[in-house]
Amino acid sequence: MIAIDAMGGDNAPQVVVEGALNAAKQGIALTLFGDALVIKPLLDALDPLWSSLPITVDHCSQFIAMDEEPSFAVVRKKDASLVRAAHAVRQGRANALISAGNSGAVLAVSTLIIGRVSGVLRPAVGSFLPTQAGSFFCLDLGANVDCRPEFLEQFAYMGHCYVAQVKKISSPRIALLSNGHEPYKGPTLIKQVYAQLEKSQLNFIGNIEARDLVYDTVDVLVCDGFVGNVLLKTMQGMAKTMSLWIKKEAEQSLLQRIGLFIASNVFRRIKQKTDYARIGGALLLGVNNPVVLAHGSSDAYAIENAIKFTHQIVQEKRINSFNNTLVSYLNKISCRSLLMSPSSEMQQSV
Amino acid sequence: MIAIDAMGGDNAPQVVVEGALNAAKQGIALTLFGDALVIKPLLDALDPLWSSLPITVDHCSQFIAMDEEPSFAVVRKKDASLVRAAHAVRQGRANALISAGNSGAVLAVSTLIIGRVSGVLRPAVGSFLPTQAGSFFCLDLGANVDCRPEFLEQFAYMGHCYVAQVKKISSPRIALLSNGHEPYKGPTLIKQVYAQLEKSQLNFIGNIEARDLVYDTVDVLVCDGFVGNVLLKTMQGMAKTMSLWIKKEAEQSLLQRIGLFIASNVFRRIKQKTDYARIGGALLLGVNNPVVLAHGSSDAYAIENAIKFTHQIVQEKRINSFNNTLVSYLNKISCRSLLMSPSSEMQQSV
Repeated sequence: MIAIDAMGGDNAPQVVVEGALNAAKQGIALTLFGDALVIKPLLDALDPLWSSLPITVDHCSQFIAMDEEPSFAVVRKKDASLVRAAHAVRQGRANALISAGNSGAVLAVSTLIIGRVSGVLRPAVGSFLPTQAGSFFCLDLGANVDCRPEFLEQFAYMGHCYVAQVKKISSPRIALLSNGHEPYKGPTLIKQVYAQLEKSQLNFIGNIEARDLVYDTVDVLVCDGFVGNVLLKTMQGMAKTMSLWIKKEAEQSLLQRIGLFIASNVFRRIKQKTDYARIGGALLLGVNNPVVLAHGSSDAYAIENAIKFTHQIVQEKRINSFNNTLVSYLNKISCRSLLMSPSSEMQQSV
Repeated sequence: MIAIDAMGGDNAPQVVVEGALNAAKQGIALTLFGDALVIKPLLDALDPLWSSLPITVDHCSQFIAMDEEPSFAVVRKKDASLVRAAHAVRQGRANALISAGNSGAVLAVSTLIIGRVSGVLRPAVGSFLPTQAGSFFCLDLGANVDCRPEFLEQFAYMGHCYVAQVKKISSPRIALLSNGHEPYKGPTLIKQVYAQLEKSQLNFIGNIEARDLVYDTVDVLVCDGFVGNVLLKTMQGMAKTMSLWIKKEAEQSLLQRIGLFIASNVFRRIKQKTDYARIGGALLLGVNNPVVLAHGSSDAYAIENAIKFTHQIVQEKRINSFNNTLVSYLNKISCRSLLMSPSSEMQQSV
């Protein structure tokens, strides 16, 4: 069963309920956590026979708003839909958690309730982002806005393990997002991570600039959550800007409108590539169970896709295998750093 | 006269010489700093009568490569084209400096040789970036990758003064780039700057996410140079990606190719909007004289545009007026901060 925070998202609970119902009709077992007095009438209106589907409602008297300060809200609101859904995962009643709500709060419940994988300093949000001919896996996309070098070093290992497993590449090419390819480029944080990754066993190919990502030379892109979020949202924004420009330009002449109408399939397919609703959601890596963050502005179709994506991950036991591999890698790094600098480690423990 | 670092850029000196020659033909007085043994034959080949144009060559025996460590190179290579061009500006022989070379080195000569405006902590690179129907002025685009809150606070004042002057807006809307509009969003740096700007006399409208920039709600976008560089290069990369997608999709059917051919004017005009060669270059604000950074990958046309842009700035005495206004604003802030926290200021000076 997948636990869904029905109250999370800009258009919740309506679109969450609708998306969940559509997924349940495809046989995916779900529980909607939220205000039953609102959710049940929505289900009734959408499908009077919904109770025959693998969907249940777990009533919660509270919810966390999009603009609430996350950690405070999570600690205070014990009966919030997101908190209760996370407990269902923690207790093994649910296999995964999905929320389109306050992403800071999703991160907080994932860390505080579901729990981090042993050795993981900070969970990271990762997703495949489109390029000219394929995609790269980018992390962190927003979970950690203030990072230390060792967080990014771990993100590189997470990206390595995830892409190796999902894309079946033995040695994914790992790059650091920077403002130039030269090793001396970037803020202090990036230079420190560069030095660490250069010494690692990973297939680290150095720094890459955002404009060169298009050329499919990278499998995993490592950055802090603030920069990753800017990257993701600039991609979304630029795709939107260009489609608005095309529309506006087309208005200038009938001939151009005819031309674009004839070629409209081209734009339909491109829209699909940049349509984040199709991707469904981003994964939170480094926690004990699958957690998927859907977009705050998700519509019912996006929620349905996020559920199908999560269902696939659960079916494949993707997170179990990933976590096992990650733990063995993290153990190797910590052994190596103990071996390499016994004196400094001893000093620290004194 | 405008001083040009003829040896800076991926395709220097060929494209720089060609672009400069084209600008000189339009009556703009220029000096090319660089290896005369290479530059003069290039000029001869392009136009045997070049000596009748307002263009001169100032021989330099050294140059700074794109991948050299900037501050070290600037200090060590006294006869580098960039260093000599900067001295020409410092000594009043030139009105402005243009380079498509190592941007870190351009920043170093601007600070060390041309000099900062009184009270400016860090110069910043700024440029107008396109939106749905207009543009916003973004700074810093890459000069300062490690920032303190007071740097970004000053960037907000620089952006205010520049946009007020150039766009003739009395109170430009100023926003901070963040991962959410809420005041608690963003890394510590952004939260600290938010608190400062909220107290300021500027028209500070809060945080903005990169994907919302398209809607023309912001006149000045403030960010650190690393994040600004990622924003700029993601915009460039995404425009490139989308145009490659359109080309590839069009190959799938003859009908689509016909449609796109009919509508080709649409794409020509959109290409112009995202064509950074047309913009010419970015301005370094906060230094005593106009300094323009052209793109490293500039072609002759981009260099010509950068020269025309710089010429316009010199003609308008844009930087003189801007610097005067900026100084009076910075004086006001420093007076205010002295008045507001006399004890902490005294503690610092002890």
